[in-house]
Amino acid sequence: MFQKITPKSKDSAKWYEEVVEKAGLAEHSPVKGCMTIKPYGYAIWEQIQKILDARIKELGVDNTYFPIFIPKSFLEKEKEHIKGFAPECIVATEGGGKKLEEPLVLRPTSETIIYDSFARWIHSYRDLPFKINQWANIIRWEKRPRLFLRTIEFLWQEGHTAHENINESIQQANEVLKMYQDFANKYLAIATISGKKSDSEKFAGAQSTLCIEGLMSDGKALQMGTSHVLGQNFAKVFGIKYLDKNGKEQFVWQTSWGVSTRLIGAVILAHGDDKGLVLPPKIAPYQLVIIPIWKSDLDKNKLKNKIDQLVESLADEVRVKVDWRDKVSPGFKFNDWELKGVPLRIEFGPRDLEKNQAVLAERVEGKSWEVKWEDLGKEIKKSLDIVQNKLLMNNQDFLGRNKHEAENYDELKKILKEKGGFVKTAWCGSSECEKKIKDDTGATLRVIVGRVGQGEPAYMKKCICCGKDLDNPKIDHYPSYFAKAY
Amino acid sequence: MFQKITPKSKDSAKWYEEVVEKAGLAEHSPVKGCMTIKPYGYAIWEQIQKILDARIKELGVDNTYFPIFIPKSFLEKEKEHIKGFAPECIVATEGGGKKLEEPLVLRPTSETIIYDSFARWIHSYRDLPFKINQWANIIRWEKRPRLFLRTIEFLWQEGHTAHENINESIQQANEVLKMYQDFANKYLAIATISGKKSDSEKFAGAQSTLCIEGLMSDGKALQMGTSHVLGQNFAKVFGIKYLDKNGKEQFVWQTSWGVSTRLIGAVILAHGDDKGLVLPPKIAPYQLVIIPIWKSDLDKNKLKNKIDQLVESLADEVRVKVDWRDKVSPGFKFNDWELKGVPLRIEFGPRDLEKNQAVLAERVEGKSWEVKWEDLGKEIKKSLDIVQNKLLMNNQDFLGRNKHEAENYDELKKILKEKGGFVKTAWCGSSECEKKIKDDTGATLRVIVGRVGQGEPAYMKKCICCGKDLDNPKIDHYPSYFAKAY
Repeated sequence: MFQKITPKSKDSAKWYEEVVEKAGLAEHSPVKGCMTIKPYGYAIWEQIQKILDARIKELGVDNTYFPIFIPKSFLEKEKEHIKGFAPECIVATEGGGKKLEEPLVLRPTSETIIYDSFARWIHSYRDLPFKINQWANIIRWEKRPRLFLRTIEFLWQEGHTAHENINESIQQANEVLKMYQDFANKYLAIATISGKKSDSEKFAGAQSTLCIEGLMSDGKALQMGTSHVLGQNFAKVFGIKYLDKNGKEQFVWQTSWGVSTRLIGAVILAHGDDKGLVLPPKIAPYQLVIIPIWKSDLDKNKLKNKIDQLVESLADEVRVKVDWRDKVSPGFKFNDWELKGVPLRIEFGPRDLEKNQAVLAERVEGKSWEVKWEDLGKEIKKSLDIVQNKLLMNNQDFLGRNKHEAENYDELKKILKEKGGFVKTAWCGSSECEKKIKDDTGATLRVIVGRVGQGEPAYMKKCICCGKDLDNPKIDHYPSYFAKAY
Repeated sequence: MFQKITPKSKDSAKWYEEVVEKAGLAEHSPVKGCMTIKPYGYAIWEQIQKILDARIKELGVDNTYFPIFIPKSFLEKEKEHIKGFAPECIVATEGGGKKLEEPLVLRPTSETIIYDSFARWIHSYRDLPFKINQWANIIRWEKRPRLFLRTIEFLWQEGHTAHENINESIQQANEVLKMYQDFANKYLAIATISGKKSDSEKFAGAQSTLCIEGLMSDGKALQMGTSHVLGQNFAKVFGIKYLDKNGKEQFVWQTSWGVSTRLIGAVILAHGDDKGLVLPPKIAPYQLVIIPIWKSDLDKNKLKNKIDQLVESLADEVRVKVDWRDKVSPGFKFNDWELKGVPLRIEFGPRDLEKNQAVLAERVEGKSWEVKWEDLGKEIKKSLDIVQNKLLMNNQDFLGRNKHEAENYDELKKILKEKGGFVKTAWCGSSECEKKIKDDTGATLRVIVGRVGQGEPAYMKKCICCGKDLDNPKIDHYPSYFAKAY
């Protein structure tokens, strides 16, 4: 009767699919490559959205909504952009029973349709910085769908800004990256590394792409959020100009940035265990589930009175579910809510009632303890904080233990094969070396962390792949993290 | 310098377009038939969404997300459904550079893709009632777009429920209709009439459609929300079955219902005046705009101190904007915020500061009065309530004055031509008479209010069009409201 799932250690891909399905988060849609987000999964997204939306607004960004349709001609204006996105486009060609005059691409991202408006909306330096965001569905062709991680349709937010000068735009991109990193830390309890993408991995049409990457418990990296410095690439092709303080016409400098429902995938992969999902309290739809245990209706009524009082007293601070189902056993319920990853559980039966207490259990370590009824509210709130912190500390610790350095190519291959995780190494910046590493190890360049500093060991001054000497102030140095990734 | 708009009385269509554009609500997208919702327009939608989402959840409905793509074969399962929606479909035929295996229709509504899931999710009477909702973008081919009123893409919520028996499903549809009507009343300050649609106007595939209709200030009706009793039409073609308490297999009874960004159009049309938009305080992004009036920086700083205190003291209860722009005059600002329909305005200059007061002005009647500084908070909150009520009373009054009865066909034609509004009349129920009335008057049947009662006057017992005697307990009687409509 219990919902058994494949242990994570045995087959993490199968484990993932089963958790997503059995915890009621999402399922594969009959439309190949698409997902249906079920109530429990969507409730997690609502928590994420609520927090992020407020954070985005704090950055002075207004929400908007732009059409899902992008004329093909728009996408083609920025050459790198269309080159990158062409293979992912899904195209509408019929409408109202007729062939459309121009094929309409379903937005794989909205830079072009949004910047066409920017060109009409922005006139003067007084309009800058100009900052908008939208919450929308995104469509990208995908042959190997994985629920939440890559599907043809997903939900995201995309922010778009325009600035007077390059420095301000870079500052904006960094500010957003920091906001994403802080959100991942404080709410998703996921520690991330951050840095710049290589040219081959950056956003098509961007000058550079900043990103945060988390390390999932199977040792693979997951890109969790990106923030693009767009330079004037789009401004020039869409004609986004403003009159500066001296009355001179200038092109704006831009950024765009986003996170998606993929964050739910990150939470599953980072914290889940053999019992199923583990949710950080701050984004859990239910932070506490109360499981009353009764034999007679009389017992049930007595329990109900007390539970109603508790729920009401917690209403403003804790999201509570009481499981009154009468066709399944308490054991089944324990199992079910563990699978769904609810951080705290209260068991409450007639004997507890008599003793004026309840049993409080927590999901991460699986321990339980008795708490006096009058202390419950305080204990619950304290425990939620403890669980949230514990998850983050576990994750930070895990990331720390799985950041390696490779001194030479054989070591790089060995670490990636045997240990996984992130490997920091010296890289000359050439796409040839990047490709060779990928071909030899299956790992991709996740982020460039910065230039070689003076204090670095000798092996960080030579490209790990081609051996090129990087200890020269005239050339760019690229210590970077490589990892196998989702 | 002021943004002049065409008076509403002169050309209400032009007035509408100008208000939408100049108040910064939305604009026509370069993609023909689509709209771009700008920050101020989207902020109104966010207010509407927040309130409605909470009301929907109170009905025990969970949010979800289903794919935008609907396989053509799904839509074709329910014959009436595809017949109604086929002319409105926009179809994706290419993906990843290749022709798609099956053409994918972009959802014109989601019954079919959702009920395919219902068939897999619902097994037992214990799963019922089953209630879900989604906030999503909807795509319907449209040749004559009007911003917010009808565009190829719009935003909406669609609720879908399944029940054990027909009565419960009808009750659900009515409960939702009541919720919509109450929302229109209390938040949008729009009084509506409600009833059933005729067969020719009902939702394609429904057993019957309930709806609410508002009367816009130009005398035309606007459909604002619909709630469909679906019967077992979809349950049978999608196989949504459950085991009842006796272990017998049964088909479920269903409802679906929705409101859209069209509600923003309703607010504009119902309350707007020659100065522009008029927003009910409860859905206004800013309920109060403060316009400081200063000449010197010294003045400005003094005003700022006081204003900051006021804004902080109101922060939890009133949405406030302070207009510190220094390149435009106070007069320009007054005009601008009137155009944007902000319910209350505070004017505050050095002389007010000296006299320890401010000037409070309200948008609906345009009056202003002096208020002592220490009374401002209280006065603002009171005034917001008064304005909200005034708008509703005005609208109720307007609806009351524009509900007519027609005794004969000539009178029907005359009223619809000269006065507009809703005309209640007797109708035999035939689509021939319905069509003739439409052809002769341009008015459509908005809602069927019920069957002829005993106390009705004689002219309500004969079809106004064909003269058929309706005073017979064996035949259905249809007193209905006709109106010209958006």
